[in-house]
Amino acid sequence: MEEKDFERYYSLIETNQLKQLKNELTEMAYPDIAEFIMSIEDEKTVVKVFRILPKDISADVFAYLDSDSQEIIVRLITDREIERLMDDLYVDDAVDFLEEVPANVVRRVLANTDRETREIINRFLKYPENCAGSVMTIEMVELHDRLTVGEAIKNIRRTGVDKETIYTCYVIDDKRHLVGTIPLRRLILNDEDEYLTDIMSDDEQLISVTTMDDQEDVAALAKKYDLLSVPVVDRENRLVGIITIDDIVDIIDEEATEDFEKMANLRPSDDEYLKTKVLKLAKNRIPWLMVLMISSTLTGQIIEGFESKLAAVAGLTACIPMLMGTGGNSGSQVSTLIIRGLALGEIKVKDYFKVLWKEIRVSIMVGFALGVVNALRMFILRSTIGNDASNSVILVVSLSVWCVVIVAKIMGCTLPIIAKLLKLDPAMMTGPMISTVVDAISLLIYFTLANAIIPF
Amino acid sequence: MEEKDFERYYSLIETNQLKQLKNELTEMAYPDIAEFIMSIEDEKTVVKVFRILPKDISADVFAYLDSDSQEIIVRLITDREIERLMDDLYVDDAVDFLEEVPANVVRRVLANTDRETREIINRFLKYPENCAGSVMTIEMVELHDRLTVGEAIKNIRRTGVDKETIYTCYVIDDKRHLVGTIPLRRLILNDEDEYLTDIMSDDEQLISVTTMDDQEDVAALAKKYDLLSVPVVDRENRLVGIITIDDIVDIIDEEATEDFEKMANLRPSDDEYLKTKVLKLAKNRIPWLMVLMISSTLTGQIIEGFESKLAAVAGLTACIPMLMGTGGNSGSQVSTLIIRGLALGEIKVKDYFKVLWKEIRVSIMVGFALGVVNALRMFILRSTIGNDASNSVILVVSLSVWCVVIVAKIMGCTLPIIAKLLKLDPAMMTGPMISTVVDAISLLIYFTLANAIIPF
Repeated sequence: MEEKDFERYYSLIETNQLKQLKNELTEMAYPDIAEFIMSIEDEKTVVKVFRILPKDISADVFAYLDSDSQEIIVRLITDREIERLMDDLYVDDAVDFLEEVPANVVRRVLANTDRETREIINRFLKYPENCAGSVMTIEMVELHDRLTVGEAIKNIRRTGVDKETIYTCYVIDDKRHLVGTIPLRRLILNDEDEYLTDIMSDDEQLISVTTMDDQEDVAALAKKYDLLSVPVVDRENRLVGIITIDDIVDIIDEEATEDFEKMANLRPSDDEYLKTKVLKLAKNRIPWLMVLMISSTLTGQIIEGFESKLAAVAGLTACIPMLMGTGGNSGSQVSTLIIRGLALGEIKVKDYFKVLWKEIRVSIMVGFALGVVNALRMFILRSTIGNDASNSVILVVSLSVWCVVIVAKIMGCTLPIIAKLLKLDPAMMTGPMISTVVDAISLLIYFTLANAIIPF
Repeated sequence: MEEKDFERYYSLIETNQLKQLKNELTEMAYPDIAEFIMSIEDEKTVVKVFRILPKDISADVFAYLDSDSQEIIVRLITDREIERLMDDLYVDDAVDFLEEVPANVVRRVLANTDRETREIINRFLKYPENCAGSVMTIEMVELHDRLTVGEAIKNIRRTGVDKETIYTCYVIDDKRHLVGTIPLRRLILNDEDEYLTDIMSDDEQLISVTTMDDQEDVAALAKKYDLLSVPVVDRENRLVGIITIDDIVDIIDEEATEDFEKMANLRPSDDEYLKTKVLKLAKNRIPWLMVLMISSTLTGQIIEGFESKLAAVAGLTACIPMLMGTGGNSGSQVSTLIIRGLALGEIKVKDYFKVLWKEIRVSIMVGFALGVVNALRMFILRSTIGNDASNSVILVVSLSVWCVVIVAKIMGCTLPIIAKLLKLDPAMMTGPMISTVVDAISLLIYFTLANAIIPF
């Protein structure tokens, strides 16, 4: 969608050519209409444009709006319009919306919804955030296990319009137990008089999750088995909903964002950056910065205990930032790979010793290369700008680089796996931990080597 | 799939009960069969198990194997078997496989493929990595624009078995130009004698990419429009392939992993950690560590220029790691949010001033909080363990914390957006840049304040 189109729509609004605008908007895809509505600044105009949308597409467009625009619309439309809108929304979209808006808006919406829908929505709102129950939808195709292919297709044609996806159909028995799945594809490609039970996937091939499962596990299953939707069952294996691939894609993005935030020492947040208030951003950032600052008291103490030597030997102090930086960077290189590998299921806790052995070899090589280059760097500095680092200082620094890289890589692969073993989030535990631990150990190595090699 | 099941399969292999094993494997989902085959250590057994799979599922299972197992199988099966396997594989899976294995295996495979398939594969192999052409498949449902719904469904039933997805059908004209799309859902739910051209999505709602578009853009479109597949056209808008949602999910994971790696100063790599050789891991890590180590010469020089003051005033040196750490962490908090926001399209270059204004306010608050807590921390240290930092040192350090946080946050939001503006990868440019720039600026602020406030 080009920006210039929006300009034209704005001018249609200004000149009140609403019929023309309606025609043009109706031609567009729902996300583009939503994008246009979100770009409007005046609240009344937002509602005006939303109201000219044909009834059959307004709920679809509504689902693509951000929560700010949704709130504006619901605040300004009539009770009658709210009722209709809630009726037309898929349950999962309605729940998404209600989870984001203030309590008074939720009350008004629920007061204008029929009892049945209200009960369903209330049930959904009670699932804890990020579990399968809270992201599922109940608009799925359920087929009875006595049907034939022909009957099933007839059934889908009759009821399919209201279903969020009809591409995977779920076969249930009399007690609503999930007994099998059939892709629509298989229905279409089979003979009309085949029985569903003969062509459905069942038993070992039947993938499902329960309402309380973590959404991350749902995404992992969908990825592993290339599913277009994942069925959700209760504890008695009764089908209660499905999670569709478009929501799974959102979950994948959300989970990756969460890991990015945790690894950058941020408190994770579901909100988009531009929509988050300054105070909230500050609140998300202060805790870990505080923890890290206070824990750096440790490195401060280590340096103080060594201050007289640092003052006496020229060049030792100047290398502290380089050493700590190299340690921190080496550690975060590994921990990132391990955290990501754990998140994608490519690395498991039981692989620890394989990982450790690999890192030991890698770090010996990497540390050696860095140590040698560091020695060269320091020789060149001395001969060009007359830096006064002695040979023994150069030896100490280069040896320290080597050791620090090895220790940092070992910590970087060990801490995430320990976190996973303790059922903690590897991403959460390791960013802050690694920097503090590696900083302290780097300094201890440096000063120990300095004491051993440089006469005082 | 439980590990213990595998144990039972192993014992079936040992006791040569292959028929029983075949029956049990056939019940399983393809990814689970693949997982079992990949768990087998002996190469001959891998091929033995692969060979007992029924012909109609062996290609599907092959597509789920990792490239190591694929290579073993292709090395040990006959030319005749290779031909059959290549025939049964979807083109995109065949291309994925050929991109990963050594050149001699590629030659052997292509020598045993019929000319037509070979030409298609060769065409695919020539697309640059990570562009739409290299990840697309050509097994899509194309419907002529003169057909009715009934004719279209008949057409799909006749040809659909070989198509990777039949859920979105593509409507083309006589010259293969893409003129519209129809979800299978709409075909099923419409009357048999409707014309496709009357019910298809066209014009503004028609989303497509060209073969040379970046795969990241494909994923962004699929996410925005909730597509199950994205059509790929050539420069004349002729339909040449599609990219299906399962590949799009892989692309999303790949791109996130790439950003994780770049932000951790790693050269990005497509390989799974456990399968990457030690030498390659070392090679991916050394370049940026080297750059960062050498660029820390700058911070070293700044410290050297200040060494006499550091030696004279107690407590100044000990705070260097804390200050640099706080600067680095503050910067990476913002840059992570901005890089992720840019990657997900939530933040655009034109939002820069909004972002900057937000960060200035956030950083004043965060920096103030940290500065105050730091002063408390240093007072407490002095009164408990007899640390000898004077009041003016405490003032200098706390003021520096405040300034450093502000500068780090401004750099952290500015550098990624500059990178994006210059068409560089924000994730690549900012990790290393920010740490170096912020480190140097932090020290300069610290020493300038120290010179101004503390009498020498």
